[in-house]
Amino acid sequence: MCGVAGVYNHKEAANLVYLALYSLQHRGQESAGIVSAKNGHLLGHHQMGQVADIFTEAVIEKLNGTSAIGHVRYSTHGDSALRNCQPFVVNYASGPLAIAHNGNLVNADILRQQFEARGSIFQSTMDTEVIVHLIAASKKPTLIERVQEALAQVEGAWSLVFISGDQMIAARDPFGFRPLVLGRKDGAYVVVSETCALDLLEAQFIREIEPGEIIQFNGSGMQSSFVETPRPTKKAQCIFEYVYFARPDSIIFDRNVYEIRKGFGRQLALESPVEADMVVPVPDSGVPAAIGYSAESGIPFELGLIRNHYVGRTFIEPTQSIRHFGVKVKLNAVKELMKDKRIVLVDDSLVRGTTSRKIIGMIREAGAREVHVRISSPPVLWPCFYGIDTPERKELVAANHSTDEVRKFIGADTLAYLSPESLYWFQKHKEKGEWFCDACFTGTYPAGRELIEERLNL
Amino acid sequence: MCGVAGVYNHKEAANLVYLALYSLQHRGQESAGIVSAKNGHLLGHHQMGQVADIFTEAVIEKLNGTSAIGHVRYSTHGDSALRNCQPFVVNYASGPLAIAHNGNLVNADILRQQFEARGSIFQSTMDTEVIVHLIAASKKPTLIERVQEALAQVEGAWSLVFISGDQMIAARDPFGFRPLVLGRKDGAYVVVSETCALDLLEAQFIREIEPGEIIQFNGSGMQSSFVETPRPTKKAQCIFEYVYFARPDSIIFDRNVYEIRKGFGRQLALESPVEADMVVPVPDSGVPAAIGYSAESGIPFELGLIRNHYVGRTFIEPTQSIRHFGVKVKLNAVKELMKDKRIVLVDDSLVRGTTSRKIIGMIREAGAREVHVRISSPPVLWPCFYGIDTPERKELVAANHSTDEVRKFIGADTLAYLSPESLYWFQKHKEKGEWFCDACFTGTYPAGRELIEERLNL
Amino acid sequence: MCGVAGVYNHKEAANLVYLALYSLQHRGQESAGIVSAKNGHLLGHHQMGQVADIFTEAVIEKLNGTSAIGHVRYSTHGDSALRNCQPFVVNYASGPLAIAHNGNLVNADILRQQFEARGSIFQSTMDTEVIVHLIAASKKPTLIERVQEALAQVEGAWSLVFISGDQMIAARDPFGFRPLVLGRKDGAYVVVSETCALDLLEAQFIREIEPGEIIQFNGSGMQSSFVETPRPTKKAQCIFEYVYFARPDSIIFDRNVYEIRKGFGRQLALESPVEADMVVPVPDSGVPAAIGYSAESGIPFELGLIRNHYVGRTFIEPTQSIRHFGVKVKLNAVKELMKDKRIVLVDDSLVRGTTSRKIIGMIREAGAREVHVRISSPPVLWPCFYGIDTPERKELVAANHSTDEVRKFIGADTLAYLSPESLYWFQKHKEKGEWFCDACFTGTYPAGRELIEERLNL
Amino acid sequence: MCGVAGVYNHKEAANLVYLALYSLQHRGQESAGIVSAKNGHLLGHHQMGQVADIFTEAVIEKLNGTSAIGHVRYSTHGDSALRNCQPFVVNYASGPLAIAHNGNLVNADILRQQFEARGSIFQSTMDTEVIVHLIAASKKPTLIERVQEALAQVEGAWSLVFISGDQMIAARDPFGFRPLVLGRKDGAYVVVSETCALDLLEAQFIREIEPGEIIQFNGSGMQSSFVETPRPTKKAQCIFEYVYFARPDSIIFDRNVYEIRKGFGRQLALESPVEADMVVPVPDSGVPAAIGYSAESGIPFELGLIRNHYVGRTFIEPTQSIRHFGVKVKLNAVKELMKDKRIVLVDDSLVRGTTSRKIIGMIREAGAREVHVRISSPPVLWPCFYGIDTPERKELVAANHSTDEVRKFIGADTLAYLSPESLYWFQKHKEKGEWFCDACFTGTYPAGRELIEERLNL
Repeated sequence: MCGVAGVYNHKEAANLVYLALYSLQHRGQESAGIVSAKNGHLLGHHQMGQVADIFTEAVIEKLNGTSAIGHVRYSTHGDSALRNCQPFVVNYASGPLAIAHNGNLVNADILRQQFEARGSIFQSTMDTEVIVHLIAASKKPTLIERVQEALAQVEGAWSLVFISGDQMIAARDPFGFRPLVLGRKDGAYVVVSETCALDLLEAQFIREIEPGEIIQFNGSGMQSSFVETPRPTKKAQCIFEYVYFARPDSIIFDRNVYEIRKGFGRQLALESPVEADMVVPVPDSGVPAAIGYSAESGIPFELGLIRNHYVGRTFIEPTQSIRHFGVKVKLNAVKELMKDKRIVLVDDSLVRGTTSRKIIGMIREAGAREVHVRISSPPVLWPCFYGIDTPERKELVAANHSTDEVRKFIGADTLAYLSPESLYWFQKHKEKGEWFCDACFTGTYPAGRELIEERLNL
Repeated sequence: MCGVAGVYNHKEAANLVYLALYSLQHRGQESAGIVSAKNGHLLGHHQMGQVADIFTEAVIEKLNGTSAIGHVRYSTHGDSALRNCQPFVVNYASGPLAIAHNGNLVNADILRQQFEARGSIFQSTMDTEVIVHLIAASKKPTLIERVQEALAQVEGAWSLVFISGDQMIAARDPFGFRPLVLGRKDGAYVVVSETCALDLLEAQFIREIEPGEIIQFNGSGMQSSFVETPRPTKKAQCIFEYVYFARPDSIIFDRNVYEIRKGFGRQLALESPVEADMVVPVPDSGVPAAIGYSAESGIPFELGLIRNHYVGRTFIEPTQSIRHFGVKVKLNAVKELMKDKRIVLVDDSLVRGTTSRKIIGMIREAGAREVHVRISSPPVLWPCFYGIDTPERKELVAANHSTDEVRKFIGADTLAYLSPESLYWFQKHKEKGEWFCDACFTGTYPAGRELIEERLNL
Repeated sequence: MCGVAGVYNHKEAANLVYLALYSLQHRGQESAGIVSAKNGHLLGHHQMGQVADIFTEAVIEKLNGTSAIGHVRYSTHGDSALRNCQPFVVNYASGPLAIAHNGNLVNADILRQQFEARGSIFQSTMDTEVIVHLIAASKKPTLIERVQEALAQVEGAWSLVFISGDQMIAARDPFGFRPLVLGRKDGAYVVVSETCALDLLEAQFIREIEPGEIIQFNGSGMQSSFVETPRPTKKAQCIFEYVYFARPDSIIFDRNVYEIRKGFGRQLALESPVEADMVVPVPDSGVPAAIGYSAESGIPFELGLIRNHYVGRTFIEPTQSIRHFGVKVKLNAVKELMKDKRIVLVDDSLVRGTTSRKIIGMIREAGAREVHVRISSPPVLWPCFYGIDTPERKELVAANHSTDEVRKFIGADTLAYLSPESLYWFQKHKEKGEWFCDACFTGTYPAGRELIEERLNL
Repeated sequence: MCGVAGVYNHKEAANLVYLALYSLQHRGQESAGIVSAKNGHLLGHHQMGQVADIFTEAVIEKLNGTSAIGHVRYSTHGDSALRNCQPFVVNYASGPLAIAHNGNLVNADILRQQFEARGSIFQSTMDTEVIVHLIAASKKPTLIERVQEALAQVEGAWSLVFISGDQMIAARDPFGFRPLVLGRKDGAYVVVSETCALDLLEAQFIREIEPGEIIQFNGSGMQSSFVETPRPTKKAQCIFEYVYFARPDSIIFDRNVYEIRKGFGRQLALESPVEADMVVPVPDSGVPAAIGYSAESGIPFELGLIRNHYVGRTFIEPTQSIRHFGVKVKLNAVKELMKDKRIVLVDDSLVRGTTSRKIIGMIREAGAREVHVRISSPPVLWPCFYGIDTPERKELVAANHSTDEVRKFIGADTLAYLSPESLYWFQKHKEKGEWFCDACFTGTYPAGRELIEERLNL
């Protein structure tokens, strides 16, 4: 889970990237970085923490080039150290190069071993670094050709932005796993993970960067090309961006996330109705689906769980006599509202089940008579290898237990998931699976299937 | 706007106060502090910033006494400097004393001038400091008597917690402007501004501290007494706690805030109906009233404005070519949802009108056809002198313009407020004004009226 | 031990005070502060730590008034907390006032108790604060009169600088215990503890501020007055400033410290000669006396102990298997130089004896054949109550043991002190004791004798 | 200019390395770092700044392996960025490896270009990094063999310490430019740049690591081997370590630095006598030579310049009306001492001449009648390529001006240098140049002569 941004040819490039990252903060809160290009040099700053804490006015002022790229990160591959922060900057024969990457490469380890066997040295533990080594090892004369050659050799998910010298390059893998969109502001080009960043920048949305597309921005404008691999016949856009990851105000894969998510809730109400007094979402991610469930079922929507928005990263738990606080730190039930009531609790997904168990416990302590859990996506059965930070299979509760066992574990009166078919309510007339990756629900991995099966010991 | 907490006789007193402050963070984000009493000494830490950032494990470990008080602060009286952070600690003839105060004293300036004329020195610019001088100047032999004598001389709003030596004292002004509740945990006494703090501590709610009550906690348990002033015949609990300030999951003045607020929305729908496609709240404070409006009117509720929860205090605005971002940094419209639609926009209150103007502009840019603004409280016409940080009268837009002028200013198609009568929907059978201070809406100031009128040049 | 500085009427007042404090850093490394006056307001910054670490360009820029005072502190009275940092700022009836104090008041506790009994509140535990309370309690109409009245009531040592409104006041106690000198730079007045600060500022030395003098600096220039007490017939300038405390390049009490100190060494060589191969100082304070001893005795001077100048305040000692490092962290012996040699080790004073013991151990480990310790001052027998941070009497090794016992304890072959008479080598034609306080050597306390004797249980 | 340290097989390895770096702080104050090996993993911390500020107890506790290496750095090659801090850590095919390097490689650029042409990526701009690439590119099976092969390919100065897995390796270039010594403590091996570090650790000095020697420390003890290059027939130990760089209490190249330096002063007095009243050193580096000059000439030694030891890195200069303070911040003259006197000013070396000029100006302002400058080394005529941070040739004042021109420039009455012959006073019976590199004085570069001449455009 990461977010990327790039701005080309704007006198406040770093400032705009800062704003973009700020609105992409939900895609990664662990570290953030910006690198700006000025007269061929790269000026950068990255740090563990959140965008608004890291980038002071003094820091931004130093990143005063006319193009810049940025990254927010939630660790997926590579441990959580400063050296694994992005944008990743290297010096190679053609000078300095910075790269920001959202997604995960399936064949990174193999490529890395090949490079190391030849004596190459890696700075980080990130899969992203193999792309840079492929670029450095390419014999092609220009950066764009080197990038094309490099990307033809990697498999998996990548939405990428590079800067080097006086050019910026944006690229998206041939399956289009992760979103990446193109916009314009004041004549400058803007590339961001989600359209909500364009909204904050007041930039104009142009179009999605297409699966497999590589766009070079330079003094002559922008030139589009495509990765020279046998192009896949189908896209594999990540359905989980719709389920949980993207911001509801963004347009992802040409559809608004809020409406998709509300539709999940409607479908869920149709598939798994229940008699109840109120529909309560797990905030904030469950809200649109709960609104949909309420609208379809006619059961009133209530904000029965209040979220504490001041949760800091450094929150400390009492260590001695006081027991673990868990979810109470983030959520509290409106007891008077739920007392003696039948609750439909709507959440976006169910992964380990442990948080749901705590929330349901809290609702029961608040005096609810019944708790009916409705999950606005199918059970997560398989880990993601394309950039979503799902746990290993053995920790996926639905992969190892029946729905009734899960229901008992979380303490619900009833439990229902959205059916896999209903995930595609928004494309009734298209064939299922044509456009989306739903491997986390189905186990059908579109890219690097052999390597993944090996890793899963299948 | 502040929050206070105190824990007496618990081996993890500071840790519990930390958790309490954490859940009271919405009452003040400017500074926070905790002071713990250990063998008659006071150990304290306070700092500008938010609770979760200030109190690391190392800091808390040093505050290892068996009683502690804490404070979160949003400046109302006294500028925003470190020396104005609370709990406020002084040394006087009887030793060290710490005080945490929520509320505002109306006669603080007069008392201060009297003290200064006699040669006393003040450390801070806070009104709270006069209470300490009154205590120090008292000739009474015990702290509780000194506190009683001191509080009999101050006018205005105070919810207070003191610690000194081996005792803790909690007190609430005779009008009961600000909330203050008593709880128990593991045999220890807990005093906090709102019940949501008891929930996080898993402490048992005992009762409100009564208006005018002074409770002393010491080795013999707790002893209750009352401020020896001609006791007012009516309470004057702050209605604005219901409108905006308190957390919806708290019980304030014996009623749940969420339900009160939802009721405001229902009343508003009854009083000021409108034909529309959706009800959209200004998040987060407008949500319960919007749910009430939607429920009463049957117009669907939608979360059409998405809030960015990562807004840091250090957020920097681009300074050169890029224009001021204002509310866009915090909120974004779900454009696809609102396009060509008629929107009922529900907010909790309207003070200056400038934020509403920006939000409505954003909704119009998103393509909404009509914007009907519904405010779930009456127009704010008068400044608060009891602890709510309202601006001066000249900045209160409704105090200086007709409703139609305000409507034009904010750019709404229609604008309606909740009627003053409907504020009291929850006490249909009681006389209006008997229990609450609604001076911000009516100009009827229950305490220190002469001093306030002088200050308002009436 | 502290240092003070003040600059009146210079557009870079705070910058000059910063430089002055920087060159007075040897007088206190625990905390430092600067307060600048601008249009009647006081702008200040103080912090634990050293001048060069505390005052960044950004900090200094904010202290942009045309007068400023500053302070470096080594705790003598009042514990080491931020609130005990100086300059000390208070608000009283006439507005804000800042004070910086070098010295110690003998009757501070009595005055403080009187104030507290009347209900006054103290912010700090510093003796300095009583001066401010006396000023605030004065009924005189002007600040200078209030200061005069206040200073007439305190006993002990004080070199003071005040700022308030548009004036600065400097004052020195009637005994003249601590130094305080007046200079000019670019038309501005400069007041500093030692002349070395004038050298760095390239300010012109005018004269010492006289014992008992109070100088007011305002728009009309400077006006001198004197404390209205029965003026003492004799000065009591601190001889320990010559022995150890002042910088050797300063002129203190109208004499150069380096030359005085070198003279101590010459006298010591005359009084306590010894046959040896080299004279080695304990760096840095023993160097001038060692040069004097070497010059008088003809025994070669060698820098046999090398000092590590990078000792930070945060130096951490290994905590497990490695033993305490003590003086080794600061000093190392040049073993090849001292092997099999007879060493005269010269130090400025001997207080507890523990450091000398470690140094002599180190010299013996380096292979020295004989170690003859020569102390360039008499044995310290009595604690100081006027601002030097000597320990209690029971910790003064010479107060509790014979010279031979001390010699054995520190491990020297011979031990000799300078005679009390030779302390006054520089004023051969004046009566001993007329001009100086040597209470630490003689027990003859010039000020507050009764209070001191009470405290010493004599 | 750098210092290195390594400790093998001690449960407090990082703690000991910390102490060693602390006593080697004079070799580099820009950044410091420690890397500890624990079960094959490397745990590291490095930061800009000084040892005592960087390494808190909490930081050291995390570096809890049983071997550790450390580095203090003053930039010579590679700019001053965090990524250029050492120890330098990389991951290559055989796992993590850390390296600490004192010295400079002459052929680093050429090797780097070769690697980059093959697609390798460099993380830093340091010459040290090529050693790691050579190791990674080696086809040899063991680390020690890879190190041997790598070091056979680099030319220049290197005193190195590596750790990887469960071994530590120390190496010194075949010329022995930089010092590196071996010691033992509690059964553990200790490798440090100077013996003063062994003194602080209370470690036993074993011997110098020999020029060209590579020592491997592992579970079987230590094994010595030599770099497989045509071994040079002569050592080329850096004479400038004696002149200026090393600490006077260290034994470098088997001789005590203090005594060598004092001998330089004696020789200088014999070669360039002058009639004068006192010998004054430029502190601290000129002290031993001044003592020697005084002893030989009979002219009294005086500490006429007092150094301010509190100079912080962040010292800020007044920026507006006040002129540049330069050397005054660090030094002040004892005016009373030097007034009307004839001064012999002794300094260790003369590079640019600008500091000398300021010091002499200060002495003249103090009223000295004559200033005779004596430099205890020959004029610096050539830049160093082996690790001393001398400026380019055009900035070396003696390389571009006659001695009389330099004398006039610095404002001295007379100026004399030590003769190149007298540099070797300590080895009267050996041929000059046999053992030492004096290229900075003579231009005779022992290693990489062709590359150096090319760079100097000779």
